[in-house]
Amino acid sequence: MPAPVSLTEILPIDYPIIQAPMLGVTTPDMVAAIANAGGLGSLPVGGLSPEKTADLIRATKARTRKPFAVNLFTHETTLPVDPAELDAMQDWLAGLYAEYGLPFERRGPADFTFYGYRDQVAVLLSERIPVVSFTFGTLEPAVIDSLKRQGSRLIGTATSVREARLLAELGVDAVVAQGVEAGGHRGSFLTDEALPQVGLMALLPQVAAAVSVPVIAAGGLFDAGTVKAVFGLGAAGVQLGSYFLASDESGASAAYKEAVLNAGDTATTLTRAFSGRWARGIRNGFMARVEQSGLAILPYTYQNSLTAALRAYGQQHNLTDLIALWAGQSASQSRRGPCRQLLLSLVDALRRDPEPVF
Amino acid sequence: MPAPVSLTEILPIDYPIIQAPMLGVTTPDMVAAIANAGGLGSLPVGGLSPEKTADLIRATKARTRKPFAVNLFTHETTLPVDPAELDAMQDWLAGLYAEYGLPFERRGPADFTFYGYRDQVAVLLSERIPVVSFTFGTLEPAVIDSLKRQGSRLIGTATSVREARLLAELGVDAVVAQGVEAGGHRGSFLTDEALPQVGLMALLPQVAAAVSVPVIAAGGLFDAGTVKAVFGLGAAGVQLGSYFLASDESGASAAYKEAVLNAGDTATTLTRAFSGRWARGIRNGFMARVEQSGLAILPYTYQNSLTAALRAYGQQHNLTDLIALWAGQSASQSRRGPCRQLLLSLVDALRRDPEPVF
Repeated sequence: MPAPVSLTEILPIDYPIIQAPMLGVTTPDMVAAIANAGGLGSLPVGGLSPEKTADLIRATKARTRKPFAVNLFTHETTLPVDPAELDAMQDWLAGLYAEYGLPFERRGPADFTFYGYRDQVAVLLSERIPVVSFTFGTLEPAVIDSLKRQGSRLIGTATSVREARLLAELGVDAVVAQGVEAGGHRGSFLTDEALPQVGLMALLPQVAAAVSVPVIAAGGLFDAGTVKAVFGLGAAGVQLGSYFLASDESGASAAYKEAVLNAGDTATTLTRAFSGRWARGIRNGFMARVEQSGLAILPYTYQNSLTAALRAYGQQHNLTDLIALWAGQSASQSRRGPCRQLLLSLVDALRRDPEPVF
Repeated sequence: MPAPVSLTEILPIDYPIIQAPMLGVTTPDMVAAIANAGGLGSLPVGGLSPEKTADLIRATKARTRKPFAVNLFTHETTLPVDPAELDAMQDWLAGLYAEYGLPFERRGPADFTFYGYRDQVAVLLSERIPVVSFTFGTLEPAVIDSLKRQGSRLIGTATSVREARLLAELGVDAVVAQGVEAGGHRGSFLTDEALPQVGLMALLPQVAAAVSVPVIAAGGLFDAGTVKAVFGLGAAGVQLGSYFLASDESGASAAYKEAVLNAGDTATTLTRAFSGRWARGIRNGFMARVEQSGLAILPYTYQNSLTAALRAYGQQHNLTDLIALWAGQSASQSRRGPCRQLLLSLVDALRRDPEPVF
């Protein structure tokens, strides 16, 4: 195995540590705090309108002069929905909304507006975003070309060797290897056989052996020990999400943070109940009720749109049974505090090691 | 985290490397080869009669004068089966057996004989087995006492922090932390919420922090890099199964070995189709057909008994669609060769490390 290219050589950062993009949790304050402390902050904008995307980028730039990454969802937005399944899920959700006194507006298959990453590229170019990361698929070659011509570095997300190879062939600068331990949405996009659920201990060395671009490890990392371990397995960097979930800059509600800090190693599961895509979160009432309903869960992002108002209500009222408590399998090992301190205490612990990995 | 007790201090071995018990694959030759080379061989006897258990132990002793472990299945053998579900599964399996010209003998719920670990304890005591490992549960206190009084070391299997804590409280000498990457049966026994599916990167450090006995890492380990990584995460030893699957001493058929060496990182899945208990194996025709049947899979070991003749036929005729191709998520990284060479090449690579872990 050749020594991996250092991530700090190809990205404008001091430490090869990436704050994972967590849509709904990551705030411009979080991204800026990580950037200001020398890590790579990631601003998630998946599925947002170009206007909202630009607003968030500008809000982040107002808080830091350091570079940061913007993270896209690159799934196809034109997936059809079965009208009968759409009706059945809406019937069921309308009942659930009513339980909380919330209005529910029924929609037909044509009443959904989904923004895709192609709608956001012009904003990324005009804002001269130095690092563009993405998940749920690939980028089309024309987009890769235009971003690269402007000097953007590209980071794709893989949950299998096959996905990593495909991303490397497309010309990304680095690949995130997302182990099954990771919280939030699986980045999987080649799911013809089944959803890849490979543990990081198996995934990382196999991905690192398969591609020549730097590999960034993600999933279950929470301290100097786990970070050091993945460097030994061929990682050139790490991406941590749950580690920053309970931080001061996190947008998670107080109840969500509390749930994360109390989650055990087996508290989470993979579910499609909230969004229609597989994601890891702490088991709660909504997941259980969708499962008990026996209904077909709609494809992403139909399911996501229909549950959005309920999740927002749950977030506002600290009702953990209504919100997606995305979290990884080591989430309980995370800590409260400012992101800067969380990042730098990790860096310090790694630097104190007799054989520092960076 | 206190430095873990060295496994070589409490077990009669030179290297803290355990060959995982693989029922149907592990032979007395394999166990003896590992023992003779300085590792801990594990002879699987789960569910076997006392006579067969004694025969296998003596066959192994005839091949080595070194100590080895005997591995028990410690599930309760008195689980009831739903008569209607038993009928339906037998109807379906009778059709499948007929496709291969195999006779199928229908049985009633009372026609099954299952041996449990309690039936085997007398043999273990009279054979003075120095290390008794077990999976699928705990051992009852009287059995623990009698084995310990004779000087046996006990190793339990955990797939969650809760299981590890329970085993440690019962007085085991070491705990195997089995990550979701591992091939073969999940050792899980506290499944009231859901089957634990924790990746080793998340499971191991949390287990190591929770118990004071040495922790043995299992799942996805296949080389010096992965072994070194888990020592850094708090392991005092490792248990490798797939690594020895294609070895000369393995009882796997030629077709099974070939399938293992060609398995990709996503080739395996967890299934109950073969035995009634969750286990990781390479996807094949039998799994797919059981799934398509929509039938309720019978509890362990009813399902296991009913599929036994079909699996034996598949093993004899190299039909990989009929046999349980148990394998972990890094199984393709294993190699052919004598077990002694596989073990010692791993030891050599670890010892050549500038910071050897043992």
